[in-house]
Amino acid sequence: MSRPSEQSPTGGFRARLHTVIFEADTPAGKAFDVALLWVIVFSVAAVMLESVAAVRVQYATALSVAEWAFTVIFALEYALRLVAVRRPLDYMRSFFGVVDLMAILPSFLSVFFPGAQTLLVIRVLRLLRVFRVLKLGHLLGQAEVLMTALRASRAKITVFLGVVLSIAVIMGALMYMVEGERHGFDSIPRSMYWAIVTMTTVGFGDITPKTVLGQFIASVLMIMGYGILAVPTGIVSVELANASRMLPDTQACPGCGKQGHDLDARYCKACGTALDWAASKPESK
Amino acid sequence: MSRPSEQSPTGGFRARLHTVIFEADTPAGKAFDVALLWVIVFSVAAVMLESVAAVRVQYATALSVAEWAFTVIFALEYALRLVAVRRPLDYMRSFFGVVDLMAILPSFLSVFFPGAQTLLVIRVLRLLRVFRVLKLGHLLGQAEVLMTALRASRAKITVFLGVVLSIAVIMGALMYMVEGERHGFDSIPRSMYWAIVTMTTVGFGDITPKTVLGQFIASVLMIMGYGILAVPTGIVSVELANASRMLPDTQACPGCGKQGHDLDARYCKACGTALDWAASKPESK
Amino acid sequence: MSRPSEQSPTGGFRARLHTVIFEADTPAGKAFDVALLWVIVFSVAAVMLESVAAVRVQYATALSVAEWAFTVIFALEYALRLVAVRRPLDYMRSFFGVVDLMAILPSFLSVFFPGAQTLLVIRVLRLLRVFRVLKLGHLLGQAEVLMTALRASRAKITVFLGVVLSIAVIMGALMYMVEGERHGFDSIPRSMYWAIVTMTTVGFGDITPKTVLGQFIASVLMIMGYGILAVPTGIVSVELANASRMLPDTQACPGCGKQGHDLDARYCKACGTALDWAASKPESK
Amino acid sequence: MSRPSEQSPTGGFRARLHTVIFEADTPAGKAFDVALLWVIVFSVAAVMLESVAAVRVQYATALSVAEWAFTVIFALEYALRLVAVRRPLDYMRSFFGVVDLMAILPSFLSVFFPGAQTLLVIRVLRLLRVFRVLKLGHLLGQAEVLMTALRASRAKITVFLGVVLSIAVIMGALMYMVEGERHGFDSIPRSMYWAIVTMTTVGFGDITPKTVLGQFIASVLMIMGYGILAVPTGIVSVELANASRMLPDTQACPGCGKQGHDLDARYCKACGTALDWAASKPESK
Repeated sequence: MSRPSEQSPTGGFRARLHTVIFEADTPAGKAFDVALLWVIVFSVAAVMLESVAAVRVQYATALSVAEWAFTVIFALEYALRLVAVRRPLDYMRSFFGVVDLMAILPSFLSVFFPGAQTLLVIRVLRLLRVFRVLKLGHLLGQAEVLMTALRASRAKITVFLGVVLSIAVIMGALMYMVEGERHGFDSIPRSMYWAIVTMTTVGFGDITPKTVLGQFIASVLMIMGYGILAVPTGIVSVELANASRMLPDTQACPGCGKQGHDLDARYCKACGTALDWAASKPESK
Repeated sequence: MSRPSEQSPTGGFRARLHTVIFEADTPAGKAFDVALLWVIVFSVAAVMLESVAAVRVQYATALSVAEWAFTVIFALEYALRLVAVRRPLDYMRSFFGVVDLMAILPSFLSVFFPGAQTLLVIRVLRLLRVFRVLKLGHLLGQAEVLMTALRASRAKITVFLGVVLSIAVIMGALMYMVEGERHGFDSIPRSMYWAIVTMTTVGFGDITPKTVLGQFIASVLMIMGYGILAVPTGIVSVELANASRMLPDTQACPGCGKQGHDLDARYCKACGTALDWAASKPESK
Repeated sequence: MSRPSEQSPTGGFRARLHTVIFEADTPAGKAFDVALLWVIVFSVAAVMLESVAAVRVQYATALSVAEWAFTVIFALEYALRLVAVRRPLDYMRSFFGVVDLMAILPSFLSVFFPGAQTLLVIRVLRLLRVFRVLKLGHLLGQAEVLMTALRASRAKITVFLGVVLSIAVIMGALMYMVEGERHGFDSIPRSMYWAIVTMTTVGFGDITPKTVLGQFIASVLMIMGYGILAVPTGIVSVELANASRMLPDTQACPGCGKQGHDLDARYCKACGTALDWAASKPESK
Repeated sequence: MSRPSEQSPTGGFRARLHTVIFEADTPAGKAFDVALLWVIVFSVAAVMLESVAAVRVQYATALSVAEWAFTVIFALEYALRLVAVRRPLDYMRSFFGVVDLMAILPSFLSVFFPGAQTLLVIRVLRLLRVFRVLKLGHLLGQAEVLMTALRASRAKITVFLGVVLSIAVIMGALMYMVEGERHGFDSIPRSMYWAIVTMTTVGFGDITPKTVLGQFIASVLMIMGYGILAVPTGIVSVELANASRMLPDTQACPGCGKQGHDLDARYCKACGTALDWAASKPESK
């Protein structure tokens, strides 16, 4: 109950519901989240199993029952969430609100469009919420370092993708002219698909150059892709190094203002002054 | 109008044209560039669509009209650019001058050589100009960091390519002898193509070793390629780290203005003046 | 004989046995370990050879004899190890105790279940012990740097694997719907296998998208995988850089002996004492 | 003539020959090396062309003549080298001496064993000498940085290869049992080949798992390989960073002994003293 001043009879119930459903500080809240985690895992597993022909034929009824059961559980949970939050519309428009709704809808869609229940795998995104709620602190700290690194590289990655796409267009057109339809390069879009398959070093081999010139161009593209592959790796490495260096960087020396001390540093490495959090220990100077 | 002193009646018109076509500081210049960007995107899309057999059959006339319309637009633009610049020959010889011309020529070529219009995808390179003109500052800053990193690694990358090619020649000849023509290694050039496909970890699988000895050599080559792949990545990472360390340099020397000091530098490395944040500490000299 | 005070007639024998079998400081101990290393290599080679049909048919008896000979040798060695250690149960429960037992059992299993002897390749793990015993110091120091780097990245790698698996589930379901059974994507689990093959840039090509939409989604996945591949590489690079920065530390603090100072540190970060090479400059405080 | 004191009539001729053949400081020496470079390139090209069936049939005589001409040239050169050096045996035993001999022998071997001339591609290694002799200074400086980086990583790379091979053995045996001969995994060595193809992300697709369990194990192996791929990249990155940081490190501050200054530093970044090579400029303090 984070806002006791706004409490009301309903608000008290709503606040308690909120504590259970949205938070994980109380035993009830934790139990709810762990239970939800398992329900999500099982519901995704059920969707996967249904896609296997042999399983679908033999356990059709059981899977159908399970699917509707999971849908009902998630629908109920969605309703409870709407009740628990103070501003339901804000929740509905939020990322997790949309995901929660999309975790229910495909079941109803599948009544009209058979096969739509495959969309239920979107439920796997719900696991993200549980991670957040369960306060898996150090894991999320790491995820944030990663996100910071990626966000810092956004501009560079955009430039990089632009270059990759331009090369794909030009190389695709080149191979379309050189190899032609009889070797599988039957349109520029398909040749671009091949160029991306090659540059990313995936190399399915469903379309391959057969002529000497085509194989020469492919070799050039591969070695180029080789070098290009180095760029995003380098970018992310550098950003990760910066991000991880920034993390413990709040410790400025009170004597000389120097930053960038190691996590285990107790004295400034430039002037020898005891660092802030060590200052409370008078015997250390 | 950057050079008002050289103005003349024609020069005034030319200067205004220059502002609109080559720059993007004025509303008219910006509108021109955005329009151009879309025309380029659509013209490349048209070339791509024409290469798809199903589309080509059904929309032959529409695509042909579109292609010529785009060609006329680009030809007009090319003429205007020639008028707008002071030294048209310099422009024609510049990188973008050549690209602009090559964005028009294939259409005329296709009258004599059917299929030549595929070369029109070269128009995708024109997007680079628009990026430049639209002053997508931070994106270009990033591109420059990348280019600096790559340029600094040029010598290392040359050595690296030399090593890769030498390994490809020797491994190609080896596999040509070991596997021979009956397993697809039917010439040294083709075996070299296979060696490059393998070393870059693309691995199409169109040619694969079948003998035990061939598979053993391939395994060695793959693990070697594995390690070799690490080299350009490492080079680019290190150069990117150096480049980005140079970049965010807020510490200009109060004595000589030199930038690019290390984070822990206390004196300017060019003139020996104590750096700003160290200057307040008189005892530190 | 590291514990002479606990010596007894049997203990003396056991201690000597322990020195020979578990350690490599004495000539006998070293000879034992080198001999064991070769026996392990030959026994693994024998298992491999037996799996080759042509060899199995021709040398069936010889291989069977060799296999049982190796099993007897390892069984004897296992018995001796049980005798040599003071607490046999602790040894049996340790990692190497389990591996040693699993290096013997499959031979006996193969009497009842033909083919079980393939499990004998687990013997290759025994080589790890020999490395340890032979005190290949610098190699193990390196292995420890690697392990430290990987352990430090554990949390980040967990987050990373979670993201990869979530993408595999969603992309797998998408491709299952788009491409369907007639193009090889015949269940979500199989589509997930394809998504992992694609994201890791392995690209077998046993299952490939055939529709335009499928190839477009695959292209997106490949470029995404391209960027994702950069993340673990970056993580390990950064951790390795941190680990190796910790390692070659010749600068022990004269005050508290603490190591691991930065190259530019002038004062111990743990106790504030001026570091050795800075101590000769009295004016620097 | 670097050793004028040891000159004799023959020695004078030999010294001049040495200057021309082994060095590249004089115009004659440079011309010789450039000519040699082109002869090597053409001779390797001839060997390659001969391997192409269509070319071999049509130009059999021309290629045979060219091959023998190149062999005679290289044999002559080899003889001259033997004459030019003071200790011919040392030269013959050196790396380049062996390569020079192996660049001649296959032609003679091919008289008795048709096809042996393919070995002539070993001539490509001779290019390394020319690079060295032509004093392509900055390129070789880079190569040395690379070699230093790789040599420093030797121990780590050995441990790494050991781990990769152990995983290949165990995964190979596992897949041999799970997939069996009917899916292409017909022996442990072949399964190991598959495991290496998979772990290195080459993924030819000539052998692929067909069972659900096999595809699951393959997925685990691929994601593992994904992470393993990060290790050598990280190692080389870190070593390259160290190597490039070490390079300009001979500049110790005369005032405080601090090392690790940038290449363009003129004053110590720790104490402001003018650095050694700048000391000759008195006005700079």
